[in-house]
Amino acid sequence: MYGGGAFSREAAIIIRGEKEPRRAMPRNAFYAQSGGVTAVINASAQAVIETARKHPDKIGKVFAGRNGIIGALTEDLIDTSAESAEAIAALSKTPAGAFGSCRHKLKGFDKNLAEYERLIEVFKAHDIGYFFYNGGGDSADTCLKVSQLGEKLGYSIKAIHVPKTMDNDLPLTDTCPGFGSVAKYTAVSIREASFDLASMAKTSTKVFILEVMGRHAGWTAAAGGLAAEKDGDGPQVILFPEIVFDEAKFLAKVDATVKKVGWCTIVASEGLHAPSGEFLSEAGGKDAFGHAQLGGLAPLLANIVKEKLGLKYHWAVADYLMRAARHIASKTDLEQSYAVGKHAVELAIAGKSGVMVSIVRKSDAPYVWEVGEAPLDQVANVEKKMPRDYITGDGFHITEKCRNYLSPLIQGEDLPPFKNGLPQYIVLKNAAVPKKCKAFEVKK
Amino acid sequence: MYGGGAFSREAAIIIRGEKEPRRAMPRNAFYAQSGGVTAVINASAQAVIETARKHPDKIGKVFAGRNGIIGALTEDLIDTSAESAEAIAALSKTPAGAFGSCRHKLKGFDKNLAEYERLIEVFKAHDIGYFFYNGGGDSADTCLKVSQLGEKLGYSIKAIHVPKTMDNDLPLTDTCPGFGSVAKYTAVSIREASFDLASMAKTSTKVFILEVMGRHAGWTAAAGGLAAEKDGDGPQVILFPEIVFDEAKFLAKVDATVKKVGWCTIVASEGLHAPSGEFLSEAGGKDAFGHAQLGGLAPLLANIVKEKLGLKYHWAVADYLMRAARHIASKTDLEQSYAVGKHAVELAIAGKSGVMVSIVRKSDAPYVWEVGEAPLDQVANVEKKMPRDYITGDGFHITEKCRNYLSPLIQGEDLPPFKNGLPQYIVLKNAAVPKKCKAFEVKK
Repeated sequence: MYGGGAFSREAAIIIRGEKEPRRAMPRNAFYAQSGGVTAVINASAQAVIETARKHPDKIGKVFAGRNGIIGALTEDLIDTSAESAEAIAALSKTPAGAFGSCRHKLKGFDKNLAEYERLIEVFKAHDIGYFFYNGGGDSADTCLKVSQLGEKLGYSIKAIHVPKTMDNDLPLTDTCPGFGSVAKYTAVSIREASFDLASMAKTSTKVFILEVMGRHAGWTAAAGGLAAEKDGDGPQVILFPEIVFDEAKFLAKVDATVKKVGWCTIVASEGLHAPSGEFLSEAGGKDAFGHAQLGGLAPLLANIVKEKLGLKYHWAVADYLMRAARHIASKTDLEQSYAVGKHAVELAIAGKSGVMVSIVRKSDAPYVWEVGEAPLDQVANVEKKMPRDYITGDGFHITEKCRNYLSPLIQGEDLPPFKNGLPQYIVLKNAAVPKKCKAFEVKK
Repeated sequence: MYGGGAFSREAAIIIRGEKEPRRAMPRNAFYAQSGGVTAVINASAQAVIETARKHPDKIGKVFAGRNGIIGALTEDLIDTSAESAEAIAALSKTPAGAFGSCRHKLKGFDKNLAEYERLIEVFKAHDIGYFFYNGGGDSADTCLKVSQLGEKLGYSIKAIHVPKTMDNDLPLTDTCPGFGSVAKYTAVSIREASFDLASMAKTSTKVFILEVMGRHAGWTAAAGGLAAEKDGDGPQVILFPEIVFDEAKFLAKVDATVKKVGWCTIVASEGLHAPSGEFLSEAGGKDAFGHAQLGGLAPLLANIVKEKLGLKYHWAVADYLMRAARHIASKTDLEQSYAVGKHAVELAIAGKSGVMVSIVRKSDAPYVWEVGEAPLDQVANVEKKMPRDYITGDGFHITEKCRNYLSPLIQGEDLPPFKNGLPQYIVLKNAAVPKKCKAFEVKK
């Protein structure tokens, strides 16, 4: 046994100075889910666990963090080896985070050394040599810092980021697993609502507004544009965070559309900005990362439409429904979610660390892609917004270029199993790994 | 030709006094969609058209009203015979109203004789002897009045109501076509959102509220309860229009649930009543029937939760998305929607009039049902609310009895065809029938 010392097993092997290091004993892996969950993040979990199980010579057990990095800090680990192959295989059919997620960002080494020392204490106690973190931009930053534990604090660990964000705002990857399914949900929903509105418009509602999540980048709203395949199709108006809201232009567009088509459907990003630079609507709260908690944009826009144009409206706010909608997940997204989890393990086994698995697009039609890698220090805390040439000149729709980018991401359906008319989603046993360390309090 | 006279063809045959009336020439049928549309109302349209096509000896053409009864009043008729069998067959795969719906209720004969005389003028001009009206309670009233055209104004017509309402609030039928799909959408969505919330609750959101449509009856909210199959499952709280909102009890329930489970999901009916008897939240507008236009309950409840319990929340408002969601329609609902359309034609051919086709439940498990009929004067303007014994004693969930009633209605899936990742919904040609009458202005 090499555990318990000040250095990792690999380090220990080198210190012993053997000419040919003995074949390393398998070390355990830590996997956790972070940030807002998606309909397909569990497919990445499944891939990490299944791939690790195929390499027992390299990876011992996969310990999942209960509620993300919090699980590592509080030594609240889940023994995934207690789950059957069937249970693990059901993960890709199940939305949300099977092990619990968290919103907790590690501060810099200089500002919160205690958390890093704690991580090392827990990792060492459970012989963890691999760290797979499944999240977005904030999580990439956490993963980057874990990858630096060797250099900064002498604890060798391979840290690979497994990308996940419904917002599609990570750089250096063609898309983010989780986004394709949200995109499909948005396009399907606004198409269906447009058919509904078209039926009602003659004597009743003429404007329908769907508010979608997406804090700073308009990708999720843009996806609604895929539903409009020919002139007159809804949605006729998309409101992007990248385009400052111009009330007069908006009203003119809606008015012209209703006069021409008879009705108008609108997809509005919750992150729509007022000319002042602030979000047009804020619920008032802030999340644990200090981001404003948004919501309530749709009724605000509806009120503007009613007051200024006198049109009857309906509105919907998709919120969690869109990112949890496993029942209408994109098969392409599912495949990519699995692929990034699998490749993360393969990269770690190959000795890589400090990278994010990426999706590399080789062609649009047919959509050909492969997994790649991107350095984490170029990923963390960078938000990829919509390029201006993905948005039409008037700022209210997507261009053909954007359509060519988005369309492949929503291809394919993959219904989960249904029982009694409802999707059957797995709840794992999530057996706790016995604790070996003292208690530790995570500061908010 | 028997058209053009003061009496219908049948009447004419009798007046001629022949001993054995000659085999009646086929007369045309009028079909229209009314009120809020659903994911499956077009399945009834398909059934009416397909069944009529099988009886060319009895029914000539099926003319659809463009935008419901408005299409009859304005002589804006659609010739469905111009549509191919394939196009008609695609209707049951397409949500919303393929011919357009309306919110226009005929006033009493004494109050608006002009509209009835106009209907007779148009029906006579197009030799319409069958009237199939596809709608809810208000539409049943319209259908009833049309069925009385013979008795009151001497124009013989067979009028059959084809039930449709997502609200499930029609009496004398086991369920209303359209409801089963909304029920499935609600149960699927709140299950998915509950999985999402469970993932996030440790460090972030702890309460999620889904607002659903349903003005006076809690059926749509109740359906969310199907997602909770065992202790701890979401939703833990359902807010029904039938139970007056008690803020203190509500907060105590949410607080206890979060303390026990870690999170709480809530399905709230838009029609939730305040102790004053008013809707807890009103958007301010009224629809053409004079009903208050609701919306905005979810943020109101979320604010109460935040203010009084200090819990982070998310909320969604389903609105049109739930009733347009053909992609997750209930197969049982689709079958019933088709069956009521088919039976409506069969009843009319058999000489029935002034009735609504009903669904008759023979057993819960297995769910055995058949079509029946109910007299329209007992259907029109009657709202079927949730029986008290369908709601738990504390008023926050459904009972086993309710579950046994609801569960069969959401059974089965029936994905529409997909292309490029999106459901392919048909838009018919909707060719106009040449007008024969003078223009007529419909008063609002």
